[in-house]
Amino acid sequence: MNESMGLVLPHERVDDLNRNGLRVIQDPSRFCFGIDAVLLTGIVRAEHTERLLDLGTGTGIIPILLTAKTKCKSFIGLEIQHESVDMARRSVRLNKLDDIVTIDEGDIRLAAGIYSPSAFDVITVNPPYMPSGGGIVNENSPKAIARHELLCTLEDCVKAAATLLKQYGRLYMVHKPQRLTDIMTLLREYGLEPKYMRLVYPYADKPANMVLLSANKGGNPMLEVASPLIVYCADGGYTDEIREIYYGEEPYNTCRYTSAELR
Amino acid sequence: MNESMGLVLPHERVDDLNRNGLRVIQDPSRFCFGIDAVLLTGIVRAEHTERLLDLGTGTGIIPILLTAKTKCKSFIGLEIQHESVDMARRSVRLNKLDDIVTIDEGDIRLAAGIYSPSAFDVITVNPPYMPSGGGIVNENSPKAIARHELLCTLEDCVKAAATLLKQYGRLYMVHKPQRLTDIMTLLREYGLEPKYMRLVYPYADKPANMVLLSANKGGNPMLEVASPLIVYCADGGYTDEIREIYYGEEPYNTCRYTSAELR
Repeated sequence: MNESMGLVLPHERVDDLNRNGLRVIQDPSRFCFGIDAVLLTGIVRAEHTERLLDLGTGTGIIPILLTAKTKCKSFIGLEIQHESVDMARRSVRLNKLDDIVTIDEGDIRLAAGIYSPSAFDVITVNPPYMPSGGGIVNENSPKAIARHELLCTLEDCVKAAATLLKQYGRLYMVHKPQRLTDIMTLLREYGLEPKYMRLVYPYADKPANMVLLSANKGGNPMLEVASPLIVYCADGGYTDEIREIYYGEEPYNTCRYTSAELR
Repeated sequence: MNESMGLVLPHERVDDLNRNGLRVIQDPSRFCFGIDAVLLTGIVRAEHTERLLDLGTGTGIIPILLTAKTKCKSFIGLEIQHESVDMARRSVRLNKLDDIVTIDEGDIRLAAGIYSPSAFDVITVNPPYMPSGGGIVNENSPKAIARHELLCTLEDCVKAAATLLKQYGRLYMVHKPQRLTDIMTLLREYGLEPKYMRLVYPYADKPANMVLLSANKGGNPMLEVASPLIVYCADGGYTDEIREIYYGEEPYNTCRYTSAELR
């Protein structure tokens, strides 16, 4: 662990991503990435010459993992919380990815002023899931900011993506199924047409608890709803497909899309 | 089969619904009901004192089957094609359901003028799935009318339901997942909030090919996406759940809803 000396602070830990030796620095007192971010990376397609932006990158988990799962060579992660930016930058250095991954400090709501319009081919986002509402004890806590729409709403994310994507550029999002009507109406309102959706069910006989979705800027209406992604077998172990996403040897995301993805 | 004498024409056939001895008259040269109508009846909840309208009832399969699957005692099926109206009426008589099922001849687009506003607690609909577009050989054929949006679009159905449902009344629909964004944006536009959705997958590893959905007039945004409904096992036989829907002994639909359905 000599290489990580000076990069990891005493209260932080280093998590192995089980992929190309990649690791991510996390602070257990802040928000740590979950299965949702990892599953999102499983549906992202990004080519060698394309530019990718991850909105609200947090620990940087999404761009870092995508360096192994796609052939893309240009990643930017945008993050508003200064401590997260600092930690994500150290993770990039730890993985020697400085040449292809950049972490920018900034606000999603102002992203249209930070980057040029239509600057990106691909945008990824794992937004806060819950409406802000009342009852949040500490609105400044990093966990509350990551989970609740305090600094950024679903509409802020969709709006930023609609401006920053090229025509036919692709937005990939993970969210809660409870918000699906909000998601679809906002995407269409901003000209990002949902093209591919996959529902994640914890068990085969339980309601969905996550939705993975991709939308094309200026795409035609026609949604493909892919096979159900089931996380656990009845015995409580991971299903084969989840094992593959977490520990698979596949060098790059295999294309799971049918014709619907191709506009 | 003496009882059916005079009710069934020579070119028609009588299909057993495997439920309370119910049967439906069908004409194989016209559109015959499919698994979609049967699966839709599996999610419909309708109480003893409620009034139910089935838009575009065709053979009358949905109200006829719901007489066995719910406690509701007041069903109307609205159908535009005269021959279908006649055949559905004979099916009602065949099943001795004249007291509780009425088949009306009329156009969904004019339904708001046929019935009083807010007249129904429950509306069911199995709309034509495909946009009209070009290339339909015979636009007057009963099959084309049942499958394509020739006489009635998705928006016509949603608009009629929005007018004819009581506040908090429930719309139940079966449609194609490809149209899900259209469905959700239209439902919300007309004040019918999607509350419950179930995707139907032919096999566990194949994309969804049907979507079952219920919406509440004036409901709050919060969608439950129920467990995947898988039709066939890997060996090609029906799954247990499909067997239950088709042949189950359960007298009435069991309530599969969680809190999300309750506004």
